[in-house]
Amino acid sequence: MSLIVQKFGGTSVGSVERIREVSRRIARTRAAGHEVIAVVSAMSGETDRLLGLVRELAATPKRSEADVVVASGEQVTAALLALTLENGGVPARSFLGHQVRIVTDSDHTRARIRAIDGQRLLDTTRRGQVAVVAGFQGVDENGSITTLGRGGSDTTAVALAAATHADACEIYTDVAGVYTSDPRICPAARKLDRISYDEMLELASLGAKVLQIRSVEFAKRYGVRVHVRTSFGDELGTWVVPEEASMEEVTVSGITLDRDQAKITLPQVPDRPGVAAGLFRPIAGAGIIVDMIIQNVGTDGNTELTFTVPRSELGAALEIARSHCREIGAPEPLADGEIVKVSIVGLGMRSHAGVAARVFETLAHEAINIQMISTSESKISVAIDARYAELAVRALHHELVEKGATAA
Amino acid sequence: MSLIVQKFGGTSVGSVERIREVSRRIARTRAAGHEVIAVVSAMSGETDRLLGLVRELAATPKRSEADVVVASGEQVTAALLALTLENGGVPARSFLGHQVRIVTDSDHTRARIRAIDGQRLLDTTRRGQVAVVAGFQGVDENGSITTLGRGGSDTTAVALAAATHADACEIYTDVAGVYTSDPRICPAARKLDRISYDEMLELASLGAKVLQIRSVEFAKRYGVRVHVRTSFGDELGTWVVPEEASMEEVTVSGITLDRDQAKITLPQVPDRPGVAAGLFRPIAGAGIIVDMIIQNVGTDGNTELTFTVPRSELGAALEIARSHCREIGAPEPLADGEIVKVSIVGLGMRSHAGVAARVFETLAHEAINIQMISTSESKISVAIDARYAELAVRALHHELVEKGATAA
Repeated sequence: MSLIVQKFGGTSVGSVERIREVSRRIARTRAAGHEVIAVVSAMSGETDRLLGLVRELAATPKRSEADVVVASGEQVTAALLALTLENGGVPARSFLGHQVRIVTDSDHTRARIRAIDGQRLLDTTRRGQVAVVAGFQGVDENGSITTLGRGGSDTTAVALAAATHADACEIYTDVAGVYTSDPRICPAARKLDRISYDEMLELASLGAKVLQIRSVEFAKRYGVRVHVRTSFGDELGTWVVPEEASMEEVTVSGITLDRDQAKITLPQVPDRPGVAAGLFRPIAGAGIIVDMIIQNVGTDGNTELTFTVPRSELGAALEIARSHCREIGAPEPLADGEIVKVSIVGLGMRSHAGVAARVFETLAHEAINIQMISTSESKISVAIDARYAELAVRALHHELVEKGATAA
Repeated sequence: MSLIVQKFGGTSVGSVERIREVSRRIARTRAAGHEVIAVVSAMSGETDRLLGLVRELAATPKRSEADVVVASGEQVTAALLALTLENGGVPARSFLGHQVRIVTDSDHTRARIRAIDGQRLLDTTRRGQVAVVAGFQGVDENGSITTLGRGGSDTTAVALAAATHADACEIYTDVAGVYTSDPRICPAARKLDRISYDEMLELASLGAKVLQIRSVEFAKRYGVRVHVRTSFGDELGTWVVPEEASMEEVTVSGITLDRDQAKITLPQVPDRPGVAAGLFRPIAGAGIIVDMIIQNVGTDGNTELTFTVPRSELGAALEIARSHCREIGAPEPLADGEIVKVSIVGLGMRSHAGVAARVFETLAHEAINIQMISTSESKISVAIDARYAELAVRALHHELVEKGATAA
């Protein structure tokens, strides 16, 4: 007998019929001899409806109260699923965040989990009941309701799996698993059977919206085996697991595309300490996240500085860059909102110069100019003109995934 | 400085605009120098929407889970009102049943309040914040969410007023107060300025749907002064207060009409002990509430037994009566689904034979036959043919309210 945490996202519980289907799936899992802790999101559309009410009433709502409103969505789904299970002869009971209890800090609307008491859930499953937990929500030390931020139900599920030492955490969603690229752009993309935590972190942060990034961090830290799979069938999905020995060979696990990129270039700034800090400090202060940064030192004692920000922040970042240039007497900065970032994700990539070389050759062969490059232990990212986005993804996928990263 | 509990029903918080209006009203109350504890219902229609989901998923849902679903309605309104107040510069925070805490028994969907800790709310108002409490909900000893049954927010408000020793409990609703009769039937009906708890209990149980009956029982037990008034304007409504000396004079406070009545007559049953018990025991066992009962002993050792039940229960009650008659060898019972009950409510009525006499004269004058009569300390009820319902209400209102009960 094993203990499995099953998490069902908004589309998986989006209607009365879908909730019945989830109930039947849990019944089958129990019939196969497993104990189940279920974690549910709000019915799809419900969180947006509730946030709509909040925003109509207050442009900048008190976050602790917004949390109380929004947490009601998961509360409703958890109880609906529990009573559907009971109606089908499966003993069940619902748990809200404060009943589990899932203790978080008090950073409302994006709280972080501090501690979970898994005992009540284990007592429940050992009595033969399914524990149905409202995802996304917790409670702070003062007893106030908190929420974990968008996609927080994934984190709830993985954290509960860690706290109860569950054998696996199944994330049911509306896609079949993690793909080597976006199938809408790259028809040759295929589903991965397994992927390491680190690769998944790169994929998650690069826009593959399958798993919330914090849930992957949690899974890595506590060694939770996560299985991402579809709620619309019984096919196996993708296992997100610890790195294995056989993984040491360089394999490219995926090509991702991030369209939310805009570029700012300061063509000529004095090359002396503190200049970059003087620019990036006010940008960070404005809450703008800078992604890629490159700096070319010229021969004339000046340097060219280029960085990327989310497109929605381009105006604000440009304003700060302008006033900085005026202060230091540098020429006006240049902006480009028409770039994208393509990333090649795979373990051990930095140490294999061969992969980087093949990336550059592939793009050169398609006459695509690389504007910026950044690398990490498990990814190579290039910023290119937005026009070539799909072409670059397909070419890199063909060369590095379909042919194989070590086939060169 | 006084402490006022203000309760807002579903129509009073039924839209974003109505919630803003409630927020402005609370701000005005505070500006006038009062501390406020607000109690809110779910937005109108929301409870029915949630119950609809529950019933689609389970014909006989587990009641503890149904409570978790339905309680979310008041949770949303409480937080929306709190953040609207904050947005308007009025410090506020929301409280759910388990946060207050409002401890109830475990009789889910119709729980009764056992204890309330008013201290957290008093601490909140003393800090200058408005406490906004989700009505209708509590928590049992095990930490499970409970609800108090339809209209339970009235009870929450009155119970909080008792627990915090508030100076008044204002019930804001979509009517202007308590009327001497239903204005749709009796255009001469007028709003009462004040009414005693006992009269209000009679009016509430007789179908004047202004206040939940349990909230009036609560108010009477703890001496809470309740003010029922409209949320659509600033006019004073009706005070529900302890009986006062000046009330000893007989005054008729209202004429009510209950259409949910059906009559069953056993024309000839043996007049011996145990016969009535043998009939009413299985009827009570079937959960059917018997209202009026009359029994006429004849000269032949037989008796005629007539009683009323809610119309929806007529079929079930008749079935039980039939099998009882067969058992004791009595003739078949007769059923009449076309009767109504008209009640004249007022203090000290039983001891004033004059009022009863005027009731009978008034109905006789309109050629309305009285089929059954029952009286209590503060009401006289008559069952009549449904055809004459409105005529009887208007005639009795004219004679006993407009002319005055003691004017004869």
